[in-house]
Amino acid sequence: MGNCQVCCKNFWCHSKNTNVRISLPAVCFLWQIAMIILFGAFVRYNEESDAHWPDYKKEHNITSDSENDFYFRYASFQDVHVMIFVGFGFLMTFLKRYSFSAVGFNFLIAAFGIQWALLMQGWFHSLDPTDGFIKIGVENIINADFCVASCLIAFGACLGKTSPVQLMVMTLFGVTLFAVEEYIILELLHARDAGGSMTIHTFGGYFGLTISWILYRPNLHQSKRLHGSVYHSDVFAMIGTLFLWMFWPSFNSAIANHGDGQHRAAINTYLALAASVLTSYAISSLSANKGKLDMVHIQNATLAGGVALGTASEFMITPYGSLIVGFCCGILSTFGYLVLSPFMEKHLKIQDTCGIHNLHAMPGLLGGVVGAITAATASTSIYGSEGLKNIFEFVGTKRTPSTQGGYQAAGIAVALAFGIVGGAIVGMILRLPLWGDPADDNCFDDEVYWELPEDEESIPPILEYKNHMDIKNPDACVSESNFSVDQS
Amino acid sequence: MGNCQVCCKNFWCHSKNTNVRISLPAVCFLWQIAMIILFGAFVRYNEESDAHWPDYKKEHNITSDSENDFYFRYASFQDVHVMIFVGFGFLMTFLKRYSFSAVGFNFLIAAFGIQWALLMQGWFHSLDPTDGFIKIGVENIINADFCVASCLIAFGACLGKTSPVQLMVMTLFGVTLFAVEEYIILELLHARDAGGSMTIHTFGGYFGLTISWILYRPNLHQSKRLHGSVYHSDVFAMIGTLFLWMFWPSFNSAIANHGDGQHRAAINTYLALAASVLTSYAISSLSANKGKLDMVHIQNATLAGGVALGTASEFMITPYGSLIVGFCCGILSTFGYLVLSPFMEKHLKIQDTCGIHNLHAMPGLLGGVVGAITAATASTSIYGSEGLKNIFEFVGTKRTPSTQGGYQAAGIAVALAFGIVGGAIVGMILRLPLWGDPADDNCFDDEVYWELPEDEESIPPILEYKNHMDIKNPDACVSESNFSVDQS
Amino acid sequence: MGNCQVCCKNFWCHSKNTNVRISLPAVCFLWQIAMIILFGAFVRYNEESDAHWPDYKKEHNITSDSENDFYFRYASFQDVHVMIFVGFGFLMTFLKRYSFSAVGFNFLIAAFGIQWALLMQGWFHSLDPTDGFIKIGVENIINADFCVASCLIAFGACLGKTSPVQLMVMTLFGVTLFAVEEYIILELLHARDAGGSMTIHTFGGYFGLTISWILYRPNLHQSKRLHGSVYHSDVFAMIGTLFLWMFWPSFNSAIANHGDGQHRAAINTYLALAASVLTSYAISSLSANKGKLDMVHIQNATLAGGVALGTASEFMITPYGSLIVGFCCGILSTFGYLVLSPFMEKHLKIQDTCGIHNLHAMPGLLGGVVGAITAATASTSIYGSEGLKNIFEFVGTKRTPSTQGGYQAAGIAVALAFGIVGGAIVGMILRLPLWGDPADDNCFDDEVYWELPEDEESIPPILEYKNHMDIKNPDACVSESNFSVDQS
Repeated sequence: MGNCQVCCKNFWCHSKNTNVRISLPAVCFLWQIAMIILFGAFVRYNEESDAHWPDYKKEHNITSDSENDFYFRYASFQDVHVMIFVGFGFLMTFLKRYSFSAVGFNFLIAAFGIQWALLMQGWFHSLDPTDGFIKIGVENIINADFCVASCLIAFGACLGKTSPVQLMVMTLFGVTLFAVEEYIILELLHARDAGGSMTIHTFGGYFGLTISWILYRPNLHQSKRLHGSVYHSDVFAMIGTLFLWMFWPSFNSAIANHGDGQHRAAINTYLALAASVLTSYAISSLSANKGKLDMVHIQNATLAGGVALGTASEFMITPYGSLIVGFCCGILSTFGYLVLSPFMEKHLKIQDTCGIHNLHAMPGLLGGVVGAITAATASTSIYGSEGLKNIFEFVGTKRTPSTQGGYQAAGIAVALAFGIVGGAIVGMILRLPLWGDPADDNCFDDEVYWELPEDEESIPPILEYKNHMDIKNPDACVSESNFSVDQS
Repeated sequence: MGNCQVCCKNFWCHSKNTNVRISLPAVCFLWQIAMIILFGAFVRYNEESDAHWPDYKKEHNITSDSENDFYFRYASFQDVHVMIFVGFGFLMTFLKRYSFSAVGFNFLIAAFGIQWALLMQGWFHSLDPTDGFIKIGVENIINADFCVASCLIAFGACLGKTSPVQLMVMTLFGVTLFAVEEYIILELLHARDAGGSMTIHTFGGYFGLTISWILYRPNLHQSKRLHGSVYHSDVFAMIGTLFLWMFWPSFNSAIANHGDGQHRAAINTYLALAASVLTSYAISSLSANKGKLDMVHIQNATLAGGVALGTASEFMITPYGSLIVGFCCGILSTFGYLVLSPFMEKHLKIQDTCGIHNLHAMPGLLGGVVGAITAATASTSIYGSEGLKNIFEFVGTKRTPSTQGGYQAAGIAVALAFGIVGGAIVGMILRLPLWGDPADDNCFDDEVYWELPEDEESIPPILEYKNHMDIKNPDACVSESNFSVDQS
Repeated sequence: MGNCQVCCKNFWCHSKNTNVRISLPAVCFLWQIAMIILFGAFVRYNEESDAHWPDYKKEHNITSDSENDFYFRYASFQDVHVMIFVGFGFLMTFLKRYSFSAVGFNFLIAAFGIQWALLMQGWFHSLDPTDGFIKIGVENIINADFCVASCLIAFGACLGKTSPVQLMVMTLFGVTLFAVEEYIILELLHARDAGGSMTIHTFGGYFGLTISWILYRPNLHQSKRLHGSVYHSDVFAMIGTLFLWMFWPSFNSAIANHGDGQHRAAINTYLALAASVLTSYAISSLSANKGKLDMVHIQNATLAGGVALGTASEFMITPYGSLIVGFCCGILSTFGYLVLSPFMEKHLKIQDTCGIHNLHAMPGLLGGVVGAITAATASTSIYGSEGLKNIFEFVGTKRTPSTQGGYQAAGIAVALAFGIVGGAIVGMILRLPLWGDPADDNCFDDEVYWELPEDEESIPPILEYKNHMDIKNPDACVSESNFSVDQS
């Protein structure tokens, strides 16, 4: 793009100050220094990542290093890590001129968020009472990635309309809220949510939607020229889609119980995702002229099955139960893109760039409900007596499956409440005119926050070409090579 | 692209009905519902993914969860999963305007195929005789991915010339044939084929080639404008190539025996692939003016070494034996692209879009032969007495290595026969004028089945163009194809 | 691009012969045949990948296959493998017309290098004295990937200015030098370097920089038109960046000690990388007009934390120590891109295409220093007595932590010396006019060594445009912005 060469002025917005030269470095430095200080005060290795592990093994009669939790979870962690950075990052590259920001801001806020999440989650879940230190191991870094996922979901609703400083602020608060919400759901209500239908997707979805509602831009249509994809940006987005889709079984099984828990969670998620794909394609084709498929649905709705199995994946939901959940989610999510998103934008004033309501919020709610029902119908005959105790961690609490189902349902309400109330508060903070967000006619544009390369496409050899034509011989056969040399 | 703005008609095919608005959703819904019903009737968790696993552990004196098969195979499963969805999907994005279909149809048919494969393979291999249920675990989902691979290979031959409905039908029959063929080779002949040189690559290759032969299009040259790559589509295809190449050691070792079997299979495949790369580059350079490399060879022939070690990877083929196999395959496959593919198109009327004959069919055959020879020359001194039994599962059968070699060779014939006969039958079915396949002048074009974004590149100076029209001859019917031919 | 259609000659350099039609195939074939012969003479499976593993298990009272090293390291190996082929390959695709070469030459030299590395490293580290064979297992193939990484780093400095034959020669010598250097550092000095700050990054960095200095091209500005990125090439490069970033914890932990060693190495690297991201973004924003981020910094400097933890990752550097290292590296590396690279090009005559000095050489040096300090301050109270012995392998040597620190520091000097002296020698060899390297006006261009597709973008509607110009008003100032608005 570049400046307008006719009027010699910047082509876009003189109306808003998008300069982040002070604020972005300041936020990055301050927060990173705070992280170092807090890690110094609070974070240490746990017994499985500490060099005293050989002593620990002896004390606990552990005969093999393969019993270290690292070998149960590290491969899954790496899959989750790919989902967070490549999956979420590339999924959002679909906009024609916002790929740098999609991948780059995703990278920035996730890298910050995982540090803050280690602290926040550590205080709530991994504090060693004997010495007051947070003890971290592989499960903590998976949970930190999970926590950040909720903020990246919220980022999806705000994509293209926020500055990197705003996103950093949003992540700071998002991670904080997540940790409290997760503590209430998992520790106080003692609900189960291995893949985070409630804690991650419902919370993250409504958190992002509420922020987007508060930050509503009535004149967003001024950026309409950039609010769409180009051919190759859609192919880039499919990289994100596929890595999310492929690794979702790892997401839902990463922190499930060792043995059958992880095993079953992976299989259930694998099946639900497969079913989502078929119904997403079906509805997408059914809704369009000549049955043509829409990339928006393929990129997003196909993933809904994984979201909806977040809670129930480790339960005995049965293989066909997983297929049914995936079946419903593919339909629900595609309908969301077709019907709900336009409705919400028009009537509810929620501009949801990536359609997170359809991909995360609704399937997350559904996943919470599926989890509650599956938990309520659990029995010793299905799980075995030891299996039932293991999976629902009934030891020490006087729970029955049906009361467990009730607490699961309460978890949904908590996630929803934190998402909406938290989103409203954070949205108000983000509306302060401090953060360098773009003007309405300037959204969805990498140019605002990135040094862009001069593209082949946007520096066409017009002037050179013209001069050449005028002067030399307008009728001469101008060879292609001249043309391409000028271009590049 | 889009409609012609001059004559207001669709540029393409009034000749063929490519509307899949009824057929595609119908097939997706019907088959997905059938899957749910059949899974409900037949599929349950196996003892390692069922919540009764703690009881099972006690009964079988298993002391650690790390003995659960999940931890032996899940990391490999995820690699295979990436090969199926990103590897095959992106490998086929090389065409300039068929990337949506390449990735998208690959996604659709693989997601359907894995469900049907779990059933078909389950009936043949994992049926629990005590209760009549198919019991699934991580090995089953790897095998389902493998089974689908054979259909994706066949898709490679038909790329650009088939509708999504046709591909769904092809996958239904392909998976069915695969399961029967695999049962005969692995269970009846008791041949070994951990990485599927015979079952996956030979079968899939000849299945696809025969279908392509039956669906021969004499006027395919009418789509010539779209039958090539552009710069960035070739880079996208390299994503597919590299993920296939990198994870092929996991493909060949995923269902090999625990311990040395998986270990050796990974090393052998790693070596064969490395050797393939060097000879592919060598022949590619040798065959071209000024030694210039051809992306088609680099994207495909470099993978041939992995295909050819599919059978022998877990055998004691030795590291240098693996290198020799890779060496030969790189040469063979590149020659195939240079010589055989043009010959087959011209004289045998086989239009093989991705050159699967060179990447899968021939190396698969070679792999079967290598496996037969390696098996025939096995001995107790090389394998140890227990090793020999483990690897060839001689327990209970009165096999010697040399008879095993004969049965391995018989396996090749079975795979070939299923591929050719099955391909002929399925090809006839796919010729029925029901499936909404594209017209000859309309192949290799995403426009037919996808809503395409209006591209920067493809909405170029329309006004200029129109003005030009106005002045010279405003009534001439300038079709978009003229325009796009000039462009491409 | 293509030939100039006016003068009917090749557009570029008649001055240099870039024909590699004989030399490239000759090198590939000769070296691959040499590999087969040498593998035949020297390489066999080790006890864990050999079919005698069941006997070995019995002899050593190993009760479970899960004790096979394959299950401790294979998942990490696959991550490292992705870093080598996709990570390094795609990181270098940022140039607008050198993506084929970046990915393709990376693929070629890595595939050759891993074979030669298995031999060279095998002779030094894995030679079985009883029978004179190199015995390979999963750790060897990880180490081979590591070794090749040092050559790929060197490739980064030479990117765009070398022929594939030169790169093959560079890799042959680079791997050889690496194996000797690594032997001195790890076996003779008995220094620890699990993630290779010294052996891989310092050596590879200075090796490449010295070669680049010897191959200095005073007229490289003649290729300036190609020495930059385009929008989508930068997005491709982010694929490389992210896979490197995500899997770096696996790189630094892949060959660390089983149990706590691998566990801690992964966590430390995870934290250092996260901190690098924040400070890279901060400095990038701080240094530019309006705080705009520069993709070069984001693609590269964010990775510096992983490089700098290569030595110390398995030590008890503490979580906040890792954050501090990452914090400093992000700043250092980004400053390198801003200040040092231009300085080196102008005053030291080092043309470092990818800025490996900033990403590998400097952070590698820093990593060596951090490792030496951390080792020198080790104590039994921090590590436990057994932990201390395990990690520094003090058994049999009369080392104290402080002397260990000294030997670590000596390791840095060895890596540096091998890089510089080795680079000088190899650089002189590469200057011989045999290798078909491109002319100065022809660098950074895939056209030289690849058959390129005819791009949509490069055959635009020239004739239409010309006619339009002729007729309406050839002198009108057609601004670029008008043009690009029409396009988008």
